[in-house]
Amino acid sequence: MRLYDDPCSGNGYKVRLILALLGRAYDYVPLDIDKAETRTPGFLAKNPNGRIPLLELDDGRLLPESNAILHYLADGTPFLPVDPFAHAQVLQWMFFEQYSHEPNIATVRFWLTHGVEMTPWLLEAAERKRAGGYAALGVMDAHLSQGRFFAADAFTIADIALYAYTHVAHEGGYDLSGYPAVTAWLDRVSAQPGYVPITAVGR
Amino acid sequence: MRLYDDPCSGNGYKVRLILALLGRAYDYVPLDIDKAETRTPGFLAKNPNGRIPLLELDDGRLLPESNAILHYLADGTPFLPVDPFAHAQVLQWMFFEQYSHEPNIATVRFWLTHGVEMTPWLLEAAERKRAGGYAALGVMDAHLSQGRFFAADAFTIADIALYAYTHVAHEGGYDLSGYPAVTAWLDRVSAQPGYVPITAVGR
Repeated sequence: MRLYDDPCSGNGYKVRLILALLGRAYDYVPLDIDKAETRTPGFLAKNPNGRIPLLELDDGRLLPESNAILHYLADGTPFLPVDPFAHAQVLQWMFFEQYSHEPNIATVRFWLTHGVEMTPWLLEAAERKRAGGYAALGVMDAHLSQGRFFAADAFTIADIALYAYTHVAHEGGYDLSGYPAVTAWLDRVSAQPGYVPITAVGR
Repeated sequence: MRLYDDPCSGNGYKVRLILALLGRAYDYVPLDIDKAETRTPGFLAKNPNGRIPLLELDDGRLLPESNAILHYLADGTPFLPVDPFAHAQVLQWMFFEQYSHEPNIATVRFWLTHGVEMTPWLLEAAERKRAGGYAALGVMDAHLSQGRFFAADAFTIADIALYAYTHVAHEGGYDLSGYPAVTAWLDRVSAQPGYVPITAVGR
């Protein structure tokens, strides 16, 4: 199994984290998105959408989209419930992550940590994304005030998906101090056996 | 089963379409997002994220997020493959839809069809979204040039998810004439037994 990834990516970290939690070995292929290494003809032949992470199985099959990779790796493990409604609830939070959370929280982090020149248009975009990001954190905090994890009363790939960019939200200028249920949940995730930090790549 | 929805929503149409394809009856509760009817205290108690569609089961359980609802309703039917890798590929395209497709194609359609005042900031936002939307259509066209449907060599919920806003992309000013594999696929979807148009609500 081989993972194409940029070490700075929270989406990539989701995959690195579940592989560590499952104790599975993999080859790691670092790509630099700042140098457009995901837009080369060679990589676009593997993922026409030009994004990491990308999982390559030993038989050559390719799977992009971080949350789809999480689902594939978690299938048949305790990180993905079998009950159809609980399964759908896990996916509910993973779609929430890709639609209401990541585009707001991860994108502002990217702009601030990759030296993107903040034009007037981008400054207003960041302000709008900040509002959307705090709204998402509010939804998460209200939900987590009623339970330890996001779905199925257990630690699942919904938690892994939402943890990835929440725990580094401060790098995008977010202040989590008003979201105590979220910060308590961050601690519960990092206490999971086999947990690795976002800086850990390969195995 | 009860569906809270705005009849103009493509995300809601995904659910209406699979319910029609499955021949399942449901109560329809129309809400007007232009009148903020999804942000009332009553609705926020049902979905704290303040969005439609929202599925309410007969026992009162609630499920938001259009693609999670699709997954729940399709579970155990031919619209969702059992094989773990094919299952993940279906989800790959559904996450692609929510991240790379819907925010670009659906949002511009919303602005143009709901009388949103196009400020200079929004005009540039629309231009950026148009570029992202055409990039997504290019990825779809290249993929569909190699197969009849998106995943598992079959009509699945990945097709339903991507059909919803692609077939009304022209309402957002998109021109699909340069994407022949996409337009041929649109015809294959609308030819499915039990198909209903986006204007059909309730049953």
